[in-house]
Amino acid sequence: MKFFMDISKLTTNGKAIYLAYDHGVEHGPVDLVGKSIDPNYILEIAVNGGYNAVVLQKGIAEKYYLEEYREKIPLIIKMNGKTRFPAGDPISSQVCSVDEAIELGASGVGYTIYLGSEHESEMLKEFSKIEEEAHNKNLVVLAWVYPRGKAIKDETSPEITAYSARLALEMGADIAKIKYCGSTECFKKAVEAAGKTKVVLSGGPKTEKPEEFLETVKSVMDAGAIGVAVGRNVWQSADPLAMTEKIKKIIFNN
Amino acid sequence: MKFFMDISKLTTNGKAIYLAYDHGVEHGPVDLVGKSIDPNYILEIAVNGGYNAVVLQKGIAEKYYLEEYREKIPLIIKMNGKTRFPAGDPISSQVCSVDEAIELGASGVGYTIYLGSEHESEMLKEFSKIEEEAHNKNLVVLAWVYPRGKAIKDETSPEITAYSARLALEMGADIAKIKYCGSTECFKKAVEAAGKTKVVLSGGPKTEKPEEFLETVKSVMDAGAIGVAVGRNVWQSADPLAMTEKIKKIIFNN
Amino acid sequence: MKFFMDISKLTTNGKAIYLAYDHGVEHGPVDLVGKSIDPNYILEIAVNGGYNAVVLQKGIAEKYYLEEYREKIPLIIKMNGKTRFPAGDPISSQVCSVDEAIELGASGVGYTIYLGSEHESEMLKEFSKIEEEAHNKNLVVLAWVYPRGKAIKDETSPEITAYSARLALEMGADIAKIKYCGSTECFKKAVEAAGKTKVVLSGGPKTEKPEEFLETVKSVMDAGAIGVAVGRNVWQSADPLAMTEKIKKIIFNN
Amino acid sequence: MKFFMDISKLTTNGKAIYLAYDHGVEHGPVDLVGKSIDPNYILEIAVNGGYNAVVLQKGIAEKYYLEEYREKIPLIIKMNGKTRFPAGDPISSQVCSVDEAIELGASGVGYTIYLGSEHESEMLKEFSKIEEEAHNKNLVVLAWVYPRGKAIKDETSPEITAYSARLALEMGADIAKIKYCGSTECFKKAVEAAGKTKVVLSGGPKTEKPEEFLETVKSVMDAGAIGVAVGRNVWQSADPLAMTEKIKKIIFNN
Amino acid sequence: MKFFMDISKLTTNGKAIYLAYDHGVEHGPVDLVGKSIDPNYILEIAVNGGYNAVVLQKGIAEKYYLEEYREKIPLIIKMNGKTRFPAGDPISSQVCSVDEAIELGASGVGYTIYLGSEHESEMLKEFSKIEEEAHNKNLVVLAWVYPRGKAIKDETSPEITAYSARLALEMGADIAKIKYCGSTECFKKAVEAAGKTKVVLSGGPKTEKPEEFLETVKSVMDAGAIGVAVGRNVWQSADPLAMTEKIKKIIFNN
Repeated sequence: MKFFMDISKLTTNGKAIYLAYDHGVEHGPVDLVGKSIDPNYILEIAVNGGYNAVVLQKGIAEKYYLEEYREKIPLIIKMNGKTRFPAGDPISSQVCSVDEAIELGASGVGYTIYLGSEHESEMLKEFSKIEEEAHNKNLVVLAWVYPRGKAIKDETSPEITAYSARLALEMGADIAKIKYCGSTECFKKAVEAAGKTKVVLSGGPKTEKPEEFLETVKSVMDAGAIGVAVGRNVWQSADPLAMTEKIKKIIFNN
Repeated sequence: MKFFMDISKLTTNGKAIYLAYDHGVEHGPVDLVGKSIDPNYILEIAVNGGYNAVVLQKGIAEKYYLEEYREKIPLIIKMNGKTRFPAGDPISSQVCSVDEAIELGASGVGYTIYLGSEHESEMLKEFSKIEEEAHNKNLVVLAWVYPRGKAIKDETSPEITAYSARLALEMGADIAKIKYCGSTECFKKAVEAAGKTKVVLSGGPKTEKPEEFLETVKSVMDAGAIGVAVGRNVWQSADPLAMTEKIKKIIFNN
Repeated sequence: MKFFMDISKLTTNGKAIYLAYDHGVEHGPVDLVGKSIDPNYILEIAVNGGYNAVVLQKGIAEKYYLEEYREKIPLIIKMNGKTRFPAGDPISSQVCSVDEAIELGASGVGYTIYLGSEHESEMLKEFSKIEEEAHNKNLVVLAWVYPRGKAIKDETSPEITAYSARLALEMGADIAKIKYCGSTECFKKAVEAAGKTKVVLSGGPKTEKPEEFLETVKSVMDAGAIGVAVGRNVWQSADPLAMTEKIKKIIFNN
Repeated sequence: MKFFMDISKLTTNGKAIYLAYDHGVEHGPVDLVGKSIDPNYILEIAVNGGYNAVVLQKGIAEKYYLEEYREKIPLIIKMNGKTRFPAGDPISSQVCSVDEAIELGASGVGYTIYLGSEHESEMLKEFSKIEEEAHNKNLVVLAWVYPRGKAIKDETSPEITAYSARLALEMGADIAKIKYCGSTECFKKAVEAAGKTKVVLSGGPKTEKPEEFLETVKSVMDAGAIGVAVGRNVWQSADPLAMTEKIKKIIFNN
Repeated sequence: MKFFMDISKLTTNGKAIYLAYDHGVEHGPVDLVGKSIDPNYILEIAVNGGYNAVVLQKGIAEKYYLEEYREKIPLIIKMNGKTRFPAGDPISSQVCSVDEAIELGASGVGYTIYLGSEHESEMLKEFSKIEEEAHNKNLVVLAWVYPRGKAIKDETSPEITAYSARLALEMGADIAKIKYCGSTECFKKAVEAAGKTKVVLSGGPKTEKPEEFLETVKSVMDAGAIGVAVGRNVWQSADPLAMTEKIKKIIFNN
């Protein structure tokens, strides 16, 4: 078992930019505006933009990634998923096995834990088993930790953001993907709480002006994050590669 | 593992017409008017009509298909099922194993996911395991994706139709079976959202005039679907083979 | 796997009379009036009456059937059970394994599905697994299909009766045990819906006059049923063997 | 598999007195007045009183029984348990495996089924699996059957008492432990309902006067029970061994 | 199987002081004031303070303990966990396997049972399986027993405290970690109820004055506890090692 994963296959000099593209399950095609409905469009951005990995559900990985792109860019498989419809506190169940992820060529696996959901215990348990098997089989483990549900008053408060980061560490994730809490100062607290678990920003919906997003990236890098998992702010932009360059400049030249 | 299934065993020149006959579970004999109560009647239509496959629950496959028809027409086993009675958000559980499907001579397996149901996570998880095992054992995987439940305002809106098609792709289905959204334009969006996952129309209840159904078939073929899974519009019609020919003409001569 | 079971071990010239005796679980001793509280009394009726099989829960089979009766009369093990007390929609869980049934000398296994119950999906799933294993191990599979629960307005309507019969066929049962719908005509519809799955009448509570029950037996035989699973109408009667003869005359001489 | 267990290892001339001591889980130390808080005190009573077995949860068996007492007195392991706090219909889950029971030196295993609880189906299922494995491994199986929950109007009515006894038989228990219904006559009905499954009285809380309890013991023995599982009426009494002798006199000299 | 564990690897002359640090999951970083956000800070206190063990979730153990500290201080892995958010009766699910705990170098495993929670049965069942496997694999088993939920009126009443201790014994724990009930007298009852299961105090939140906590430690030691699992009262204090010395003086010199 490899408890302390070498994450260098998913980083460059310890920094990382991931292209997230699991929105087809989580939000539906409404997010996949214009050319971004086509997975090949995204995969080309990922390759040409020099991303450290692309994040896909297994179905996209099977039909688009495996044959054409496995030599070109590393893969992180999203291991659970839900649509945006069911009401009540969220639960997102495992929809891919660790072995399937490996056969698809994945270097890492990601799983969403809805911190505070009344179904939290089921997700913590499921994540924990994935973590054990994935580490045994030499995969990097990423935890998306999103506070959500009736019990959560403010999903991006400084305190809950640090809690999210800490939960990822305590559960054995190598990398935590969390939301922005609004300032460098509070994000620094989250990075501190995550300890040896690395932190990447969850990009979120496209900001009105690109500068806003870039400022957030700068803020989290200043706070000690290792990078960002970006989706809509890149592939919904008019020039994804140009936007990518701007983000990379902040991440890797800082 | 075969992630990218060869679906040619269930298509003709990339197009397909399937005869669906799982209504005995889903709706009860009320749907099986006249001779259509008899599975042999249906299987003869399937063979004589030159269908690419017939869709059956395991019980019908055991007692009618296996000995008499396995050499004559391919089989798609419906892997889950529910009756029309239980109130509340729908859940349809697995009622056939992948090994059983194989022993029954199936070339493919179909599973209904009720997108948006509060039990969605259970079906996504179950479908996912079936998909993995079926692909490992060389079966084509079909996802029936039907929006349903309290959270779904309009089960055939353009947006939810595209979402259904996309979910099938993201979950690893080879073929998505979805409902008609009302226009060629919106169905084209669904086909686009499905990407490399092929789309077939879910036939639905018998239309008042056959022309209405044929227009729908034409519309989805124009939109890029590969065909249709038809049931009541064929076997509830006065002349099923004539109706079949009309549908096939649209599907295969287009 | 034997999908098309030879049911001749549980029939005589294709007809059958079964002595049902699982009321101790389902209803309690209140049903087991007089001598019928004693399993030996029932088993003697079954043997002396020339029944095609006796239906028992595993506990009775262990302590009364196995040593004394296995050479004398075939056994159908009831695989699930519930008491009459819990409120709400019914669920009846598996309480005997297929291997246990075999060790007890069973030729067949029976399982109750409450069609329409909000727990229907759990029972369909469980029945399905039992069906697969039982057929693999050469046991006849019987489905008791009883419409029940909030969603069921009329448990013995013609339509729901035919639905019950059909569900047994679709789920892979060899024999369906269903309730009487009130007329030969409607029961004929149910038999037709069941197709190659054979239909036996579920005897129900003791009728006020024996003639009433015999008329029902005649009606279902006229409708194409292969026989009856009778309990209270025999062993609550003053002369069980005489009653048995009357029923057998209708079933086997028709 | 041994369906018809030899219970002589837990009886004397077919009669039995068991010392029950699982109250620490079910009720808490409030029941364990005076010296009875100490398991050794109980085990000494069991040995010196010549009990046929002592009934313990696995924790007590591990730390007190295994090394010191396994040569001195047989053990029945209580396989499930719950505290007295959770509201609503009761559920008591398995907390010891059959293999663990065997390693602890058990001759038998006991399990509580709450007849009529809305969780009844889970307990019937779990009991059933334990029964199968325990019989395969040569352990005597005891069912504590207690009517409980919203659906039960009177937990000690004659009818429900006979139902409890019958359920134990139908589920495959060798010995049923049930509550007293108030008269010899009604308990006789319960014993009759249990058939070849032997019946022992569940001792219940300490009676105001010892005579009351002794009368109950006399009543159930007259009714055909094989003995009693006694706890508080012995170890909460001033002179447990004297009380034991009085009970044994009724059980074994009758 | 080792039912009677040798706990000397986690004690000194039968006494023990554990440094608990699973608050990052249970309460979040809000508890981890100042330097205590850093696991290394805690591990240094544990080593330099001469603790008998440190209590960690698997994530901290993987990234901080395994390589640097396994030779320096024994480890107890916390096997389940929950955040403080979900409303309603608490459930804490297993998030680490026994094999994982062993690979991380653990000498013992701890699990929280919420006595009285409506999810109690799930935790009792899960704890029970962990206990069996852990004892088979030579790990000391600790039960954190905390009364909690709608059914619990007073979480630290004398009676519920003794019940907590007893439950740990009955379930097979080697060591019970329970809350203080307010007096030496009532804690003595709890220790008595725990029997051969050793009792340690659950330290709880930082007291206003250190003396208060030290008095509690003195009280439980006088009552027969073997020690304390302390967290916030040490690592939130200005001088953790000084505080440690004061506690140890009470525990080991008494």
